[in-house]
Amino acid sequence: MTYCVGLLLNEGMVCLSDTRTNAGLDNIATYRKMFHFEAPGERIISIMTAGSLSVTQTTIARLREAVEDADATPETSILLAPTLLKVASMIGNTLSEVRAEVNEKLSASQASASASMIVAGQRRGGAMRLFLIYPEGNFIEATEDTPFLQIGEHKYGKPILDRVVKMTTCIADAEKAVLLSMDSTLRSNLSVGMPLDLCVIEKDALKVSRQRRIEAGDAGFRAMSEAWSKALRDGFLQITL
Amino acid sequence: MTYCVGLLLNEGMVCLSDTRTNAGLDNIATYRKMFHFEAPGERIISIMTAGSLSVTQTTIARLREAVEDADATPETSILLAPTLLKVASMIGNTLSEVRAEVNEKLSASQASASASMIVAGQRRGGAMRLFLIYPEGNFIEATEDTPFLQIGEHKYGKPILDRVVKMTTCIADAEKAVLLSMDSTLRSNLSVGMPLDLCVIEKDALKVSRQRRIEAGDAGFRAMSEAWSKALRDGFLQITL
Repeated sequence: MTYCVGLLLNEGMVCLSDTRTNAGLDNIATYRKMFHFEAPGERIISIMTAGSLSVTQTTIARLREAVEDADATPETSILLAPTLLKVASMIGNTLSEVRAEVNEKLSASQASASASMIVAGQRRGGAMRLFLIYPEGNFIEATEDTPFLQIGEHKYGKPILDRVVKMTTCIADAEKAVLLSMDSTLRSNLSVGMPLDLCVIEKDALKVSRQRRIEAGDAGFRAMSEAWSKALRDGFLQITL
Repeated sequence: MTYCVGLLLNEGMVCLSDTRTNAGLDNIATYRKMFHFEAPGERIISIMTAGSLSVTQTTIARLREAVEDADATPETSILLAPTLLKVASMIGNTLSEVRAEVNEKLSASQASASASMIVAGQRRGGAMRLFLIYPEGNFIEATEDTPFLQIGEHKYGKPILDRVVKMTTCIADAEKAVLLSMDSTLRSNLSVGMPLDLCVIEKDALKVSRQRRIEAGDAGFRAMSEAWSKALRDGFLQITL
């Protein structure tokens, strides 16, 4: 399983992903699920992935190949495409193609593979945009009413986002919110696991402003997690029926 | 959808269920999902249901018929069965039979129906026991390590239970915990809805000690929900990264 969350705020975009993958319960591994496509000063596109690793790796690899191709055009490279809407559409098409190819291979054994993605991006002169790409290649976009998108194991971490995230939330609070959302998910679903990848894309920066990997033993994350547990227990004690 | 939760505590058992049912998104109704089978001073059995209404209603009706039958025996009536383990097994068998019958009817239209149940009970001279009955009729039991069981939409409401519920929790705190767990679920899943049914079975009372229906406009529930939101937001503000 996986948990990835992206936030679209007035000040910028915040993305957080876990790194645990599993093929059955007895085959656990760590893979990065956050990928950046960057032309600093021109365009930043960050992609987070959930689902079958064979689908997501191939999709990202094809997008990367197309970007690095010497003959890249606005039709083939997501770093040259005219709009972010077009970028989302190209990523969706690539995902859907790869998924179809993998499923053709799997059909003999009655298995199937699927994947979804979150795409956060901005091009020079354009607005920040945050998309959720479905396995079929269609997509939805975050808006003022719903400024966050989640893929993977989304339920445990949703209540905190529902309560505290708005487009006007500042980036520091947004980082806290996605980390607490991840903390609830880590506690309840073993197939979501550390380390975590966190990135911040400030408005009009047109590059990754800040990113860090949070390892399993991270003292700051543990302190935050314990403070949150304490806040919940204290809050619980104060409430009267 | 549905959300039901049962807690097994040293002091007693606490059960909470919602009442919303839906056949598609455009056909919403209110049905009680909590049922009591009581022989005061001898035995109390409370059942909560999730899943297809045609399965759960027929299962409860058959159990009720068997209890009320003039020729009821320990083999047929859950109020006469020798142990709570036997009761769980009888309920599981009835559920599984009904489900098989309904699915035979549905097979022509490629549909299927399923249901699960939580059973809380105590007989005179026995311990309190809390079971989760699966659609196939097999079951698991709450223990000291995991003193709560949930059916239906269980994810949103699990983090608070994980954090505050132990067998040593007092009944007042337990009521608060299940109501907050339901509150998180109501906020995040529209197909779980008010009114709610709450019941408390105190240890060795061998009857329903207390029950109430909490209607949509209930001032106490709303105040608790708002206090919890405030506690979460305040806790969130106090945490530093």
